[in-house]
Amino acid sequence: IGGLVLKVWRFLEKAWDLGVDDPRKVIHCLKVGIALTVVSLFYYTRPLYEGVGGNAMWAIMTVVVVFENTVGATIAKCLNRVFGTLLAGFLALGVHWIASQSGEKLEPLIAGASLFLLASAATFSRFIPTVKARFDYGALIFILTFSLVTVSGYRVDKLFNMAHQRISTIVIGTSLCILVSMLIRPIWAGKDLYNLIIRNMDKLANSIDGSVAEYFNRSGGLTDCEGEAQKVFLGYKCVLNTKATEESMANFARWEPAHGRFNFRHPWKQYLKVGAAVRRCAYCIEALNACINSENQAPEFIKKLLCNTCLRVSSNSSRVVKELAKIIKTMKKSSTIDLLVEEMNAGVKELKDDLKSLSLSEAGTSENKRTEKISSKPAAAIPLMGMISMVSFASFQIEIA
Amino acid sequence: IGGLVLKVWRFLEKAWDLGVDDPRKVIHCLKVGIALTVVSLFYYTRPLYEGVGGNAMWAIMTVVVVFENTVGATIAKCLNRVFGTLLAGFLALGVHWIASQSGEKLEPLIAGASLFLLASAATFSRFIPTVKARFDYGALIFILTFSLVTVSGYRVDKLFNMAHQRISTIVIGTSLCILVSMLIRPIWAGKDLYNLIIRNMDKLANSIDGSVAEYFNRSGGLTDCEGEAQKVFLGYKCVLNTKATEESMANFARWEPAHGRFNFRHPWKQYLKVGAAVRRCAYCIEALNACINSENQAPEFIKKLLCNTCLRVSSNSSRVVKELAKIIKTMKKSSTIDLLVEEMNAGVKELKDDLKSLSLSEAGTSENKRTEKISSKPAAAIPLMGMISMVSFASFQIEIA
Repeated sequence: IGGLVLKVWRFLEKAWDLGVDDPRKVIHCLKVGIALTVVSLFYYTRPLYEGVGGNAMWAIMTVVVVFENTVGATIAKCLNRVFGTLLAGFLALGVHWIASQSGEKLEPLIAGASLFLLASAATFSRFIPTVKARFDYGALIFILTFSLVTVSGYRVDKLFNMAHQRISTIVIGTSLCILVSMLIRPIWAGKDLYNLIIRNMDKLANSIDGSVAEYFNRSGGLTDCEGEAQKVFLGYKCVLNTKATEESMANFARWEPAHGRFNFRHPWKQYLKVGAAVRRCAYCIEALNACINSENQAPEFIKKLLCNTCLRVSSNSSRVVKELAKIIKTMKKSSTIDLLVEEMNAGVKELKDDLKSLSLSEAGTSENKRTEKISSKPAAAIPLMGMISMVSFASFQIEIA
Repeated sequence: IGGLVLKVWRFLEKAWDLGVDDPRKVIHCLKVGIALTVVSLFYYTRPLYEGVGGNAMWAIMTVVVVFENTVGATIAKCLNRVFGTLLAGFLALGVHWIASQSGEKLEPLIAGASLFLLASAATFSRFIPTVKARFDYGALIFILTFSLVTVSGYRVDKLFNMAHQRISTIVIGTSLCILVSMLIRPIWAGKDLYNLIIRNMDKLANSIDGSVAEYFNRSGGLTDCEGEAQKVFLGYKCVLNTKATEESMANFARWEPAHGRFNFRHPWKQYLKVGAAVRRCAYCIEALNACINSENQAPEFIKKLLCNTCLRVSSNSSRVVKELAKIIKTMKKSSTIDLLVEEMNAGVKELKDDLKSLSLSEAGTSENKRTEKISSKPAAAIPLMGMISMVSFASFQIEIA
């Protein structure tokens, strides 16, 4: 029993940490509670209850299922739900009318066959990537509504009445959800995406610095990887697997209305491109990292020769990345970025020259370290260079708009 | 109008291709149709309808919401739904009893407060990673059932009856889903995971071969990247972002009963480890690829010198990867794997020696290519080496069990 208590205690502690770490999650939970309590008022107050009939529970259901963490996700789900229901409702009424015209015996047959066909088709549409990304939930609701209406059409006589009630309750539920999620401390998917990208770029810059420093440090015999430095330098690991998160966020961000400094037609796709470039840089660091941990290390004297240039290049490029992050953050054209990029390119060139002169006079098994860096730097530099014009263009556009 | 027709036509064409590409998706759609039609029979046949009352639509709803692509996902959702409903139902009955004891005025207050508290808590629990991975859907259903029962408890007098009906309809729906998904051409998450890992390893092996060959090819002046070869060699790109898929599959696979050659306690976690190792190798290839496309290329004569050794090492290591894939596929210990690994290590050593002798006599700016390879090979070799004992151990265990 003691073990169980301890386990539960640890679980609660972890949950508490999670809440302290990100209070927005706690606020989201309270928002769900508020929305649910408000919607259940519809049920408790008699006049409203008479208005929508016994179907008030559909409103509750809508709130529970539709309420998501970010505003964009909530709106997307609401729209999907409303349009899925409407489309399925009209189709089902049409099928019901045809079935009722064709006699007592054929009626269940027609209803069953149409149910089978449409459910299969809608399920299949959920596999198509473009549909899946945006209308997955809508297709699910379509199947659900269609089957419910078709099946109950056989029993309930007041079909129109039922459809009307169902739709009005859903509209009540969805509009309540949208209002609550937008008015009480909104969490915007767009802003989250923007913060994520900036944070990832900062992490990347620190990792570039950290890993190069780590390499020369270790080679210098000073293998003092403290916990803190290690953590900073491993920051790029989080960047490696962010693709899915970024894409879903950009997808939700498109549904959001204008908020803060983000207009309605904010170029969310550009963020995805920046994210992809950041990820590519992170792969390079991963490879560089593999070199740090590999067995064949470079001789000391070569490392010392190249140490300064390498450190300069790495600090230059990390400064470029940080500057880019700042550009995105402030959405202003930076005056220093061109200078920094030039400096970085000069540093890369210097490193190349160093290597060339070295290779003429010295041995080079050890090259792997520095050349790795060379090869990772241009690889990192190329997408960054390409991005600069694009990003600053995008930010400029935003400034104007 | 012509443009619209063309668009629709293209969309249909794409959908058709998708179906031809993976007929299992089409079968899944038909299965959903079958399950829905069967469950709607409950509604059409009068005696059964009387049995479960007007609540038969809960069974339909369950089928629509719960039916997933793989058996594991379906079972996981079914269990989540049943236990979420049961737990929430009992709690709600308890709250209802307390509320009804405390008088007319306090009743809605108590019900509302408990709804607010429990909904918030359950929503919060969905943020905890361990809960999210396995019981996300269960928590959603918990909130849904609890709010429905609490709210209707105020109205419907025959609460017990309603709860009983709701649970029985859900059980009907879930058992039907499980039966249909397991009996008609089942799609096992475990088998998918197993195939995915093997396919990824094969792709990786081809990419190792391809990228090294590509490197020496291009340096030899033969820049003939045909579409086909290019495609094979870029196969590793798919490996880069498979983490989320693998994890969710392994998660579902655990729920599945024994099937095929997979026992109940099949070590799914090992697959995740193998997948992580494969991904790490893919990062190395990505870095190597950056070298291929980088500007500073090695001088010809050095490349020629090292060409043979490099090609040997790469073919060795790709053979090791392929052999490992075969081991996983057949789940048998391979007799040749130790030999192959030894060969690979010998090759790596030879390459190192070559580099050393070269560095004493020759220049080395160009080293970046080959040393990259060296550094990527051991990096690839180390996890592979670590895996070998583990994987063969796991496969051996399976053989015995």
